[in-house]
Amino acid sequence: MPLDWNGLFAPRMAGVTASEIRELLKLIDQPDVISFAGGIPDPDLFPRDAILRAHERVLQSNSLAATALQYTISEGYTPLRDWIAGRCAMARDEILVTNGSQQGLDFLGKLLISPGDKVVVTAPTYLGALQAFSPYQPQYIPVPTDADGILPDELEVALAQRPRFLYLVPDFANPNGVTLSLERRRQVVALCRRFGVPLIEDAAYSALRYDGEPLPTLLAIDLEAGQEGRVVIHAGTFSKTVVPALRVGWLAGPAPVIQKLVLVKQAADLHVGTLNQMVMHAVVEEIYDSHVAVLRGAYHRRRDAMLAALQETMPEGVTWTRPAGGMFVWLNLPAGIDGARMLERSVAEERVAFVPGAAFFPDRSGKATCRLSFTTNRPERIREGVGRLAALMGRMAEAPAA
Amino acid sequence: MPLDWNGLFAPRMAGVTASEIRELLKLIDQPDVISFAGGIPDPDLFPRDAILRAHERVLQSNSLAATALQYTISEGYTPLRDWIAGRCAMARDEILVTNGSQQGLDFLGKLLISPGDKVVVTAPTYLGALQAFSPYQPQYIPVPTDADGILPDELEVALAQRPRFLYLVPDFANPNGVTLSLERRRQVVALCRRFGVPLIEDAAYSALRYDGEPLPTLLAIDLEAGQEGRVVIHAGTFSKTVVPALRVGWLAGPAPVIQKLVLVKQAADLHVGTLNQMVMHAVVEEIYDSHVAVLRGAYHRRRDAMLAALQETMPEGVTWTRPAGGMFVWLNLPAGIDGARMLERSVAEERVAFVPGAAFFPDRSGKATCRLSFTTNRPERIREGVGRLAALMGRMAEAPAA
Repeated sequence: MPLDWNGLFAPRMAGVTASEIRELLKLIDQPDVISFAGGIPDPDLFPRDAILRAHERVLQSNSLAATALQYTISEGYTPLRDWIAGRCAMARDEILVTNGSQQGLDFLGKLLISPGDKVVVTAPTYLGALQAFSPYQPQYIPVPTDADGILPDELEVALAQRPRFLYLVPDFANPNGVTLSLERRRQVVALCRRFGVPLIEDAAYSALRYDGEPLPTLLAIDLEAGQEGRVVIHAGTFSKTVVPALRVGWLAGPAPVIQKLVLVKQAADLHVGTLNQMVMHAVVEEIYDSHVAVLRGAYHRRRDAMLAALQETMPEGVTWTRPAGGMFVWLNLPAGIDGARMLERSVAEERVAFVPGAAFFPDRSGKATCRLSFTTNRPERIREGVGRLAALMGRMAEAPAA
Repeated sequence: MPLDWNGLFAPRMAGVTASEIRELLKLIDQPDVISFAGGIPDPDLFPRDAILRAHERVLQSNSLAATALQYTISEGYTPLRDWIAGRCAMARDEILVTNGSQQGLDFLGKLLISPGDKVVVTAPTYLGALQAFSPYQPQYIPVPTDADGILPDELEVALAQRPRFLYLVPDFANPNGVTLSLERRRQVVALCRRFGVPLIEDAAYSALRYDGEPLPTLLAIDLEAGQEGRVVIHAGTFSKTVVPALRVGWLAGPAPVIQKLVLVKQAADLHVGTLNQMVMHAVVEEIYDSHVAVLRGAYHRRRDAMLAALQETMPEGVTWTRPAGGMFVWLNLPAGIDGARMLERSVAEERVAFVPGAAFFPDRSGKATCRLSFTTNRPERIREGVGRLAALMGRMAEAPAA
């Protein structure tokens, strides 16, 4: 009886399939393509010197190196937990260090979702969150957003269905760049508290604000409302503010939940790399605020360049968001233009790449949308790429059936 | 309605609880305690200089650093995959890099186990494997072992129950130090092929052999039998041979299974730290074989010291395994002595720590057993600790009811 591996995969694997778009984008990762696809930081801005110095400091010391290269506790490196706790006004035992915030999302799915459970997300939402949650087989309740974020009336209807949690990205959301307004933040936390529904706040982009003053996190609003009945678990990461490759993020939430998540971490992969955590701690102690200021300056100019180029070149019928921070502008295409089809033509005819929007909707709706990232290209190249895209869209709008 | 978090945890979390033993061992991690508890390498033997050199080489180069600090593909760093593939005579697309082998075990649980599915393990088996698999709610079928490893007749009965997989540690097993004989290896692979049952080979300790010649891996025996009907997925790690803290391990298996596991990795935490993988590749390229030879020399002397001390001091009625490699000796205690109770007294009266054996049995049987690790103490200290333990056991054997 030769083994049929596919027949052995658990039912939870049914939805775990390769993304055609991702495979396509891999193929076109070539220097002559202007890519607005990747939601990744600009490697030219990595704080390489601080990272090298931190490695040398740790590895040149016998005692530090002995700690840095050995197994450690699943909770995370204590000075790093304390640094994070200090930044979000939490206690050490309310912090778990994870392999980036992606692992935090996976753990929350594992902790909270049983097959068939309802989970509320915005439409569109972060594709990686859908990928993290889907193996636990939730039933998604998508709630639409406007320029101020998730719509409270629709959210209330969704929460009345007793979902396991609400997941959202309040600041400069991936994929649409939208920020939840202060009034909505208070409404969302109050609703989740009223219905007793956990609220997962994905703060991946929150530090990258280019306009206006920071808004309080959902975590802060939840804490203000009192320890009793807390609902927020906050997922953070150094991937956008320092570097992605050290894979250091965190979950912050009520201590009993973090305690359980520590056991999930232990079972899943024991702990985040000890050296990675010690280096990340040394780097953020030394340069976090000044480095984030550098990133904000550079990305601010790139966002402005993209918005200006869209304004100058896009044909009628195309609209887009104006993100106050983060990495992404979201385009609504004229009726009849499919984002995936546009990507094929864009790559072939214009050598420009982006991500079609359908993947960000749990039901794959939103075909006439796409996501442009402005972080990895300099302003001139952004203008060039947007101009080429506009030219293609002009041709497609003239002959929408093509 | 204030939120009841405990009421929200998924049923799969029911068995995910803190280990009392682990909590106790955390408390007694003090310099005056001679600990045989941790299954961890000796930090004095870490190849610190090679690791520092590799970090400097990567981070001092603009182009290497830009790669090393950025997001990468979920499959793993290509030169590292190729190095691993070369070592086990596989193709690159048969290798997935994971955060240590622990993450590989978690992924295999996620891929293969649905609630109620049967899983075959040895009794005793690696505690971390039970922790990795249990959230997917398997029903364990424990199969006993003797000095040559798992018993084939009992295994055949277990495989006839159509389990999802068999998990075992063929070389110097954690916890009992037992090695699966060559004849049994062939029998086990043939049985798994006959029944069409996947065979997870945990090779964490395989490189640390002190006596005799290496035996072929189950993976090699499976490949010898032909591509058609392959059953083995091999989990490897650099945690015991280089350092644990970089969190680099791998799964090696049939390409279609690895392809699916790549998607599991992407959803779980995107990828293993890029810098960690590049550094690990540079280190193993430079020093793997010579460094493993150093470890084997040092640990060989420690194993000999432990076996000699046991022989000299243990009271009648105590028996133990004689591992040909790895990190562990396994003690069978005289009837009536409970390992957990002995640990309490040993810490209080003798300042010696070890791990009681019950935790390594899915059904928590095996109370009259314990695991001693010989890797982190020098020979003199091993002799001292074993002597103290023997004295306590003498006292306990005289008054077994105490």
